[in-house]
Amino acid sequence: MSNDIPGYNYGDREVARSPLSDEELEQLKSGAGFTEEDVHHLQMAGEVLRDQTEEIVRRWRSDIIAHIPHLAKHSRALDGGLLPDYLAKSNKRFEQWILDTCFRPYDRTWLDYQHEIGLRHTVARKNQVDRVSSTPEVPFRDVLSFIPVINETMKKYLAKKDHPAEDVEKMYRSWSKSTLLQMAIWTKAYESNESTKNV
Amino acid sequence: MSNDIPGYNYGDREVARSPLSDEELEQLKSGAGFTEEDVHHLQMAGEVLRDQTEEIVRRWRSDIIAHIPHLAKHSRALDGGLLPDYLAKSNKRFEQWILDTCFRPYDRTWLDYQHEIGLRHTVARKNQVDRVSSTPEVPFRDVLSFIPVINETMKKYLAKKDHPAEDVEKMYRSWSKSTLLQMAIWTKAYESNESTKNV
Repeated sequence: MSNDIPGYNYGDREVARSPLSDEELEQLKSGAGFTEEDVHHLQMAGEVLRDQTEEIVRRWRSDIIAHIPHLAKHSRALDGGLLPDYLAKSNKRFEQWILDTCFRPYDRTWLDYQHEIGLRHTVARKNQVDRVSSTPEVPFRDVLSFIPVINETMKKYLAKKDHPAEDVEKMYRSWSKSTLLQMAIWTKAYESNESTKNV
Repeated sequence: MSNDIPGYNYGDREVARSPLSDEELEQLKSGAGFTEEDVHHLQMAGEVLRDQTEEIVRRWRSDIIAHIPHLAKHSRALDGGLLPDYLAKSNKRFEQWILDTCFRPYDRTWLDYQHEIGLRHTVARKNQVDRVSSTPEVPFRDVLSFIPVINETMKKYLAKKDHPAEDVEKMYRSWSKSTLLQMAIWTKAYESNESTKNV
């Protein structure tokens, strides 16, 4: 795991603590049907994706999001101007997120960091780590509606290393469970922000 | 569409109005990459699922949720006792929801009804239409974490009518986009409830 990504501080003391208890995390896993088999297939996915993360994030960010104004604006200045440095740094963290999703144990440290990433999409912490002036918050609904795109794109990249279709399907399924698990964790980041109600 | 389902009042005047604008609904669709092709594949899915909805909901409710205590409690009495009448009525609505997801146009009427269904999972309206005493609210994170199960179960039923694997995949993909779209719409139902913060 890389330690030289700006603003990436997995496991550090300053990372927020998720209000969810360990038991609640286990409940989310059980609700999603997330088991040791998923841990295994996510690790398999991580091996497949390891050298493709830059391309995947470029696809999401430059090929898709950049052409959807209500999503693109969240990585731009308030006047719509480009913020190449912000984009570059957050892309690096986005790439690392793919690896963390595949390789990290889903324990308290991981839970807290997912909460931290959630907060960085809300008024509580957006723009801060990169010291930029951009939109104050990404509405949670817009994050959620983009998840199908995240998952579908991923399937193509999971298939690029000639694994049997059955394995690709399993990796994709585990990946999709994980993105929903993470969205479930993010609900707490959004609930903790009064102002989100009016965004 | 059936009109004799208790508490099912699609399109009626008393249905809540979603705070989302028509433009915001279109944004959600565009973020999810939801197009006319998805409308087509959802209709195809509806034809496949039409005579399987009872079995599907039984699978979700009796085979899965009933064995997950933190989910099962939301359709039970506060002391854990069974509420067969509540379960039967809400199962009927659950079945109809599958058909609505496949066949209804995703317009203002549909948007409002999805908001209404969302509200019926929150303190604002849970238990009311069936006049039961049960948990006051299903936490949004628990709804979200169950979506992978909803989607994966569906894939099996979509494959039961001997469609080519490619068509099953397309129906499944459109279905999965729709469930996420609906969860995005539900964010507004949960945001409108102060008390959800402490659930």
